[in-house]
Amino acid sequence: MKVKVSRKAHFNAAHRLYHKDWDNKKNNEVFGKCNNPNYHGHNYELIVSVTGEIDKNTGFVVDMKILKDLIKSKVEDALDHKNLNVEVPEFEKLIPTAENISVVIYNKLRPHIDSSKDLEVMLYETPRNFVTYSG
Amino acid sequence: MKVKVSRKAHFNAAHRLYHKDWDNKKNNEVFGKCNNPNYHGHNYELIVSVTGEIDKNTGFVVDMKILKDLIKSKVEDALDHKNLNVEVPEFEKLIPTAENISVVIYNKLRPHIDSSKDLEVMLYETPRNFVTYSG
Amino acid sequence: MKVKVSRKAHFNAAHRLYHKDWDNKKNNEVFGKCNNPNYHGHNYELIVSVTGEIDKNTGFVVDMKILKDLIKSKVEDALDHKNLNVEVPEFEKLIPTAENISVVIYNKLRPHIDSSKDLEVMLYETPRNFVTYSG
Amino acid sequence: MKVKVSRKAHFNAAHRLYHKDWDNKKNNEVFGKCNNPNYHGHNYELIVSVTGEIDKNTGFVVDMKILKDLIKSKVEDALDHKNLNVEVPEFEKLIPTAENISVVIYNKLRPHIDSSKDLEVMLYETPRNFVTYSG
Amino acid sequence: MKVKVSRKAHFNAAHRLYHKDWDNKKNNEVFGKCNNPNYHGHNYELIVSVTGEIDKNTGFVVDMKILKDLIKSKVEDALDHKNLNVEVPEFEKLIPTAENISVVIYNKLRPHIDSSKDLEVMLYETPRNFVTYSG
Amino acid sequence: MKVKVSRKAHFNAAHRLYHKDWDNKKNNEVFGKCNNPNYHGHNYELIVSVTGEIDKNTGFVVDMKILKDLIKSKVEDALDHKNLNVEVPEFEKLIPTAENISVVIYNKLRPHIDSSKDLEVMLYETPRNFVTYSG
Repeated sequence: MKVKVSRKAHFNAAHRLYHKDWDNKKNNEVFGKCNNPNYHGHNYELIVSVTGEIDKNTGFVVDMKILKDLIKSKVEDALDHKNLNVEVPEFEKLIPTAENISVVIYNKLRPHIDSSKDLEVMLYETPRNFVTYSG
Repeated sequence: MKVKVSRKAHFNAAHRLYHKDWDNKKNNEVFGKCNNPNYHGHNYELIVSVTGEIDKNTGFVVDMKILKDLIKSKVEDALDHKNLNVEVPEFEKLIPTAENISVVIYNKLRPHIDSSKDLEVMLYETPRNFVTYSG
Repeated sequence: MKVKVSRKAHFNAAHRLYHKDWDNKKNNEVFGKCNNPNYHGHNYELIVSVTGEIDKNTGFVVDMKILKDLIKSKVEDALDHKNLNVEVPEFEKLIPTAENISVVIYNKLRPHIDSSKDLEVMLYETPRNFVTYSG
Repeated sequence: MKVKVSRKAHFNAAHRLYHKDWDNKKNNEVFGKCNNPNYHGHNYELIVSVTGEIDKNTGFVVDMKILKDLIKSKVEDALDHKNLNVEVPEFEKLIPTAENISVVIYNKLRPHIDSSKDLEVMLYETPRNFVTYSG
Repeated sequence: MKVKVSRKAHFNAAHRLYHKDWDNKKNNEVFGKCNNPNYHGHNYELIVSVTGEIDKNTGFVVDMKILKDLIKSKVEDALDHKNLNVEVPEFEKLIPTAENISVVIYNKLRPHIDSSKDLEVMLYETPRNFVTYSG
Repeated sequence: MKVKVSRKAHFNAAHRLYHKDWDNKKNNEVFGKCNNPNYHGHNYELIVSVTGEIDKNTGFVVDMKILKDLIKSKVEDALDHKNLNVEVPEFEKLIPTAENISVVIYNKLRPHIDSSKDLEVMLYETPRNFVTYSG
């Protein structure tokens, strides 16, 4: 009797998409205006889902308050109002595309979720572009 | 050629989260303000999904009007504008967390959906907290 | 150069609509299933808007963080996870319809907003029913 | 390290649900007011998802701009502001239910998505009725 | 102490934008693909707002159930699943643009709303295009 | 018979809130983490509304396609994927708060809207923070 429990959160950040080993012409071809060297930004909407058995005593798969605090301390504090390229160590050698950000968020949360439970990260870069990663 | 067909519905209800065998101190530790003995409430948004083969004659997996009426008679009539703890028999011994409500809704609908088809219940307790159960 | 600044918040609560001087038959005629004596509840979505001149130094009409904290301390702390009929003094003699709740919220906030500025309260009882009050 | 990348699009169209070999009485029984011979219409919201490995150089599973252009040229140009029954060849012998439209869209896109990647089509006929097809 | 009470509804319809006295070239210049002679369609989202004094006995400006039923009988029954050009008499000589539809809906409702109250009609033709009319 | 016609658009941008004549301590007090010198960013959602008489021939207050193109050329091309502080001349001496951005957008559009018509600009900085300016 497994249930998937989902919690929505959000953070705002600036980023720039470019490959450090490519010249500007190549970066513009691949990344277009996302390569703007002065950065642009997004309101990232995040949905974190944990799947597992319902605890008989509490009726919870996971306590939403604990999940909310975990997302706050591990994800929002690390990414909110940040420049992803400049201030977030994981993106020193990794391009902060929505795909890569979802993997980074998954890796930040995975050690704190019981191993008997599945984890899924859904990240909206805009209301029209979003990605899903589940390890 | 299986397609998943989803229908959105909603109901409003009051509830309280607490374990009858625990004292108030323990209930407050686990359930916080959701343990308010005077109840609080939610607009529950519900998405019921049925997965199966497309019928060649109608082009339907399931007739949306029939699915809509089924959700009305089996779920909305039972839960809408109700106090879940006091008025819904399934929660006499079951804490009405979102997880448990989704299982109760699934069990109410499953006998009325053809066994060749899969059923999934998604329940939003708030726009930020939601659960998914598929048996 | 007046700008209207809006901040969205939310709270969950239980309530019951009935007139204390009417018998149950009359209350059912007027309020239908909203008269359930065991209560039902809603996720109330709230939009508080303040209209005034832009401050030349800050570029703000009102600091969103201050407005957010004000809504938290004056509205959410008073109404969230509460039974409006039982636990909120303003509704001792006032029926907690969306209309009346919006007036109560307006009156809670008005003394804390500079008198040179206009205040508007928008309250969603459900995604389909909402009210607006501006004094 | 597979990630699912989703892109939202939309188109408006008119349609009518009826089976050519059935008389009007039978069509009304099955399709109700959707059988209106003068047509009715919808704003279809479409979510196209592609699942695959992240490219190490670009950080993309699929370039969103390319996916956006593909949806435009293969789906929107074929269906937007069209009468599905009259003007879209795929529905000459196929009833344009949401289920069948999702299959037609899948088949239009599948040849243009690398075979190592999975494709999923989600189609909202209304905000309350939607379908999902993944081959 | 005036409060504005709003109720959301929706209907689906087909339409075509063209001026009967203009040739096809002129109609295409002005209306583009909305001039498709085979029609296209929309999910129209409608918000009807009534502004007035709160009734001291009920706490209502207007009973939402009565407003909901009024919208159903006067607007939805007249427009839902219809071809606006062919089946709705008001559009025999009036082009069914969002602007004109909002005026028609206003005129259908106005006689049934107490003259001491204000009426406003907001109509979404798509999530990106909408109009507001208040007489 | 005036109708208000609204069109939704969006753009992404990076910005930083700080007053050039204040030291960092003062800027942090007033702007908090919005003062991050490496910038952060938002998906700005924009609603532009034009109010005027319905043209008897077209049924339009304003042609949505023309309004859409105007927003594209005057607002999106100027602000989308830009660093507002660094790349947008209007913000050389003006702090790019939501309030000030809405005024800048209004001023960019006003000369291109017929003077007989009213203009309103609504700008969502996040789904929870938004502003409205109408001259």
